[in-house]
Amino acid sequence: MKAFAMLGIGKTGWIEKERPACGPLDAILRPIALAPCTSDVHTVWEGAVGDRYNLILGHEGVGEVMEVGPLVKDFKPGDIVIIPAITPDWNSLEAQAGFSMHSHGMLGGWKFSNIKDGLFGEFIHVNDADGNLALLPEGVAPETAAMLSDMVPTGFHGVELADIQFGDKVCVIGIGPVGLMAVRGAVLRGASDIFAVGSRPNCVAIAKEYGASDIINYKDGSILEQVMAKTGGHGVDRVVIAGGDNDTFDEAIKMLKPGGVIGNVNYLGAGDYVKIPRVEWGVGMGHKTIRGGLMSGGRLRMEKLAALVQTGRIDPSKLITHRFEGLDKVEEALMLMKDKPKDLIKPVVTVKW
Amino acid sequence: MKAFAMLGIGKTGWIEKERPACGPLDAILRPIALAPCTSDVHTVWEGAVGDRYNLILGHEGVGEVMEVGPLVKDFKPGDIVIIPAITPDWNSLEAQAGFSMHSHGMLGGWKFSNIKDGLFGEFIHVNDADGNLALLPEGVAPETAAMLSDMVPTGFHGVELADIQFGDKVCVIGIGPVGLMAVRGAVLRGASDIFAVGSRPNCVAIAKEYGASDIINYKDGSILEQVMAKTGGHGVDRVVIAGGDNDTFDEAIKMLKPGGVIGNVNYLGAGDYVKIPRVEWGVGMGHKTIRGGLMSGGRLRMEKLAALVQTGRIDPSKLITHRFEGLDKVEEALMLMKDKPKDLIKPVVTVKW
Amino acid sequence: MKAFAMLGIGKTGWIEKERPACGPLDAILRPIALAPCTSDVHTVWEGAVGDRYNLILGHEGVGEVMEVGPLVKDFKPGDIVIIPAITPDWNSLEAQAGFSMHSHGMLGGWKFSNIKDGLFGEFIHVNDADGNLALLPEGVAPETAAMLSDMVPTGFHGVELADIQFGDKVCVIGIGPVGLMAVRGAVLRGASDIFAVGSRPNCVAIAKEYGASDIINYKDGSILEQVMAKTGGHGVDRVVIAGGDNDTFDEAIKMLKPGGVIGNVNYLGAGDYVKIPRVEWGVGMGHKTIRGGLMSGGRLRMEKLAALVQTGRIDPSKLITHRFEGLDKVEEALMLMKDKPKDLIKPVVTVKW
Amino acid sequence: MKAFAMLGIGKTGWIEKERPACGPLDAILRPIALAPCTSDVHTVWEGAVGDRYNLILGHEGVGEVMEVGPLVKDFKPGDIVIIPAITPDWNSLEAQAGFSMHSHGMLGGWKFSNIKDGLFGEFIHVNDADGNLALLPEGVAPETAAMLSDMVPTGFHGVELADIQFGDKVCVIGIGPVGLMAVRGAVLRGASDIFAVGSRPNCVAIAKEYGASDIINYKDGSILEQVMAKTGGHGVDRVVIAGGDNDTFDEAIKMLKPGGVIGNVNYLGAGDYVKIPRVEWGVGMGHKTIRGGLMSGGRLRMEKLAALVQTGRIDPSKLITHRFEGLDKVEEALMLMKDKPKDLIKPVVTVKW
Repeated sequence: MKAFAMLGIGKTGWIEKERPACGPLDAILRPIALAPCTSDVHTVWEGAVGDRYNLILGHEGVGEVMEVGPLVKDFKPGDIVIIPAITPDWNSLEAQAGFSMHSHGMLGGWKFSNIKDGLFGEFIHVNDADGNLALLPEGVAPETAAMLSDMVPTGFHGVELADIQFGDKVCVIGIGPVGLMAVRGAVLRGASDIFAVGSRPNCVAIAKEYGASDIINYKDGSILEQVMAKTGGHGVDRVVIAGGDNDTFDEAIKMLKPGGVIGNVNYLGAGDYVKIPRVEWGVGMGHKTIRGGLMSGGRLRMEKLAALVQTGRIDPSKLITHRFEGLDKVEEALMLMKDKPKDLIKPVVTVKW
Repeated sequence: MKAFAMLGIGKTGWIEKERPACGPLDAILRPIALAPCTSDVHTVWEGAVGDRYNLILGHEGVGEVMEVGPLVKDFKPGDIVIIPAITPDWNSLEAQAGFSMHSHGMLGGWKFSNIKDGLFGEFIHVNDADGNLALLPEGVAPETAAMLSDMVPTGFHGVELADIQFGDKVCVIGIGPVGLMAVRGAVLRGASDIFAVGSRPNCVAIAKEYGASDIINYKDGSILEQVMAKTGGHGVDRVVIAGGDNDTFDEAIKMLKPGGVIGNVNYLGAGDYVKIPRVEWGVGMGHKTIRGGLMSGGRLRMEKLAALVQTGRIDPSKLITHRFEGLDKVEEALMLMKDKPKDLIKPVVTVKW
Repeated sequence: MKAFAMLGIGKTGWIEKERPACGPLDAILRPIALAPCTSDVHTVWEGAVGDRYNLILGHEGVGEVMEVGPLVKDFKPGDIVIIPAITPDWNSLEAQAGFSMHSHGMLGGWKFSNIKDGLFGEFIHVNDADGNLALLPEGVAPETAAMLSDMVPTGFHGVELADIQFGDKVCVIGIGPVGLMAVRGAVLRGASDIFAVGSRPNCVAIAKEYGASDIINYKDGSILEQVMAKTGGHGVDRVVIAGGDNDTFDEAIKMLKPGGVIGNVNYLGAGDYVKIPRVEWGVGMGHKTIRGGLMSGGRLRMEKLAALVQTGRIDPSKLITHRFEGLDKVEEALMLMKDKPKDLIKPVVTVKW
Repeated sequence: MKAFAMLGIGKTGWIEKERPACGPLDAILRPIALAPCTSDVHTVWEGAVGDRYNLILGHEGVGEVMEVGPLVKDFKPGDIVIIPAITPDWNSLEAQAGFSMHSHGMLGGWKFSNIKDGLFGEFIHVNDADGNLALLPEGVAPETAAMLSDMVPTGFHGVELADIQFGDKVCVIGIGPVGLMAVRGAVLRGASDIFAVGSRPNCVAIAKEYGASDIINYKDGSILEQVMAKTGGHGVDRVVIAGGDNDTFDEAIKMLKPGGVIGNVNYLGAGDYVKIPRVEWGVGMGHKTIRGGLMSGGRLRMEKLAALVQTGRIDPSKLITHRFEGLDKVEEALMLMKDKPKDLIKPVVTVKW
């Protein structure tokens, strides 16, 4: 089969690979809608997960079931399904402890385009179909559902990690597609003021549509000072980090009230140490909790998020700024993610068979 | 001073009472907006909290600070403040344990029109002003804010007790003013499908505006069967009970999935035992958690809920169907609550001085 | 193979059955230590789970692995393993939601001697070996480990459901083997006073050894009144129910402080409704949370509990009052559970091959 | 009155000060048992909380009530009471949010020997007597109870922050008096293996008595490597930090499993940034939660911990290695804390009147 792959650090290309075999619990799909992710860019051009050779890229998409293993009960050929970016081994000790995304090792639930072939090929192998696929609900477009693979659950997980409560003031740092979903997620957990930190005009526009009450632009000065000014010097109850780097935590801790929580879902790609400022962290005793975690994957999560789309609570289609057609267009879509033109939020590729 | 009081079970009237004295931590207010509550009806005509003589009624409203005690730091005469229905003793053991509404005994945080004079008089005494009052935020009308005293926090507490998570299917039983706020609260905790049980047309209309996805009308048959039909026989993840009686729990347990939670905020006025069906409760082992609790009161809660109004996340003014002017109109407003005309959701009385 | 089975309600006997087949994820064991359970008595003589024909009994034990399926990674023939009473389908939606014991339906994780053959035969089939077995740790006797299948996790789960915190006063109702483990579990969650309700002398003796501070004997009068007297009329923070019936909840609610929690792990075998007294439940608003749930099963749980035995935190061997040798003795052991002689807590049968 | 005070950074001495006045909610005590704390050493000789002049030192002790304000209900002259190190303003917004120790600002609940006079004088002023004092229970010695002011609640809070569950493997870093109580607290939350990091012989001996399963001595090599070796390379579920510095977090994160939690109660006295290693923190997504917090104070907490002493769950008297008599001996006791002779864990001074 034909597939678009990482050939080595900094190199991509189309390759021929054998069609994956279907184990007793697995499914083989073909793609219907695909989206490239910034993580693919990290993987290829920054070597973020180490070197990889002829690894098929992509972990966001919707597909059609072509084949299922003999132990699969709930899916059959012809089903249209959402593919989560994270596909855990549900019987692992880590999953039993409530951390399925770390099944068999930290981040071990992240398999596609990391430790096994991803979605950008003619056929896709999914481990544990019953545990990891979700039917595309009626009335939800495949392209929109492709946002459920990673963008929605990652943004929403940031919100969960930050443990937002009714009336909390929240700062969302970074409003790329994940941060935008975090803004929407914060609304749907009961935040009052939501300070969204970003500057790109179309992201700012959608942040407002999703419910941001204030936009904080780093071009207008220190984001910390702006947040403190807007909160009468009291700071915020919660911070969701969906962008930035190790230093972002310095500002996040400083803008946080005692008893507050940071929820990080940003991939920290470089540097040795995350910066937690000692004094503003209450010399170790300020009850400013720091959490960071990979999104939850699997079937239940996908079904629940899909229900939010179906009932109109969220509309992730607003993230899609560029649309392509044909599997061969995943290359162009990925290059867009790499080059980040000013008007880009998220591209999606539909595939007709 | 003049005040409208319960004279005994089944009897109300206008009385003269001495203006309350202001202790060192307290405040004396005069009312600006007042709302009667169904609890007042229970108290007077059902003797729900026992007999009371010359007890001033009312526990929902907004007032102007006239006097504060010498230890009060954050409020001063002239401040316009929201008065929570529940005004805890914050240093009590119960409050230290996280249950301020039960300070110094079960339901002990509920003082107004229960164990001390309520709001329907020319002057109102508030214990622990710094701990229990909240400034009316700019741009929020006093009548709207009067809904923050009890309707919003009670409805929202039902939602908190039910512990709603992203994508949960939720049934809200009862869509009077409290249930309506529970519908809105369920949206703001991330529910997908919200089945709102009720039949009165204007309540149904507002339930939809607030985000109910389905209306379940008992006139169309068993609400249990309707909910099961709409969920493919699986039932719901959470139930918020904001109406009904002891028997309501029978249906609630039956429509709940294992692992689900019931959050009750309905005042159960009669009968000996709440009915929990043994078999459907998993013969004791189904992990169907049953919670019920009085709303949280105090200043922080009021400030957080007021911030939700101010940022437009909730609009409790939609609850107000009848508006009156003048303190003497609290009698008429209360009679409305007693008689429940078909178009009533909530009356409010504004008072000019 | 030879096995001891339920032949129908009220009837047991030895039968011949085919040796179970091993699926790709499964294991076949032979028993090394076995214990009958009161649930087996309920199942056979009360028909508690409905009628069953030629269903092999037993769900507590330790075995030796004879065969594993081709997808099993962590176990191999010759391994000595603890068999949990509950063996979930870990990829089910319920397990993904954190309630693996209800996988594929309420109580669905309870398979042995309920919906599939149990342990009292020459061979035992275990679904999902990697997810559901745990190696017997060095230094732990198989008979002791047999208490980890059900007695320890059920008692400990009652404690978890009751959410005991440092210094809480706790009442444990029922001190059969499960209640005794709940007493020990309460100590290991930080309870101060532990009121253990029971009367049988050897149970009372072990309750004290395990850390009960007071014994409440129903023969000395109302247990409610005794608990209230011992707590200065304040009641307890938590109640673990490990015995009694539907009416037990009446007393449990009444002895519970507002904000308290009931954790039930008692199988409720008869009656229509669990009795929750309306007034003492705070007319629906007392924050007295009612939880009840089947124990958690699976590998991680077994490993963690086994570590508690290995590090000497718990000694469940104290539960064992009667010891037998030979598979054929499971009948006698079960009859003991049925007849409950005064000196019985728990029998165990060891099997040599 | 006579008192032992900080005269400025690096200087201490006996001073004369006016007897404190008793506000309406307050109490005036005289000391019966007093203990100096390492924090006093930080305060005086490191200037950790900034400069202070004529500030009476000490925040651990037991006293006799001499006078109470007119609004105090539950205490009267002659009562013997435990004085918590942290005495919150219970009606503050922070306390209402569940973080009373940060009332009116981060760490604001810590008043004694920080923002107001401490306990080392002839008279002691306590704010909010009803909210902040606890009666000394019968049978508990005042010297032992003095350990409840700070040592026990701080160690136990580390355990709470780390959220220990049944069977967890736990590392406690630092086994001074706080770390020792954390070891005991870990046992009382259900830990299995407890790796206690320390080297002083008498601390090691008590760590074992309190339930440590393994002692990790930095003199035997890297503590990280030792913990990893003892856990088969898997690491621990929880880490309680009760000693060390900013760099300690580097090792703590590295020895922690994904999904694990760090609970810090160590006062971090110097340096700019706490070191969180990016890669081992899962590049931001490893679900290794970092918590740190000041102990909970107030009456309820003291009552609950005192109940643990009374019921024999904990015996903090083992911490006391040096005993003195007479108020004037607080100076010698403090110098001991400063000089840390090898056999010191904790000194206590009793005062007879």
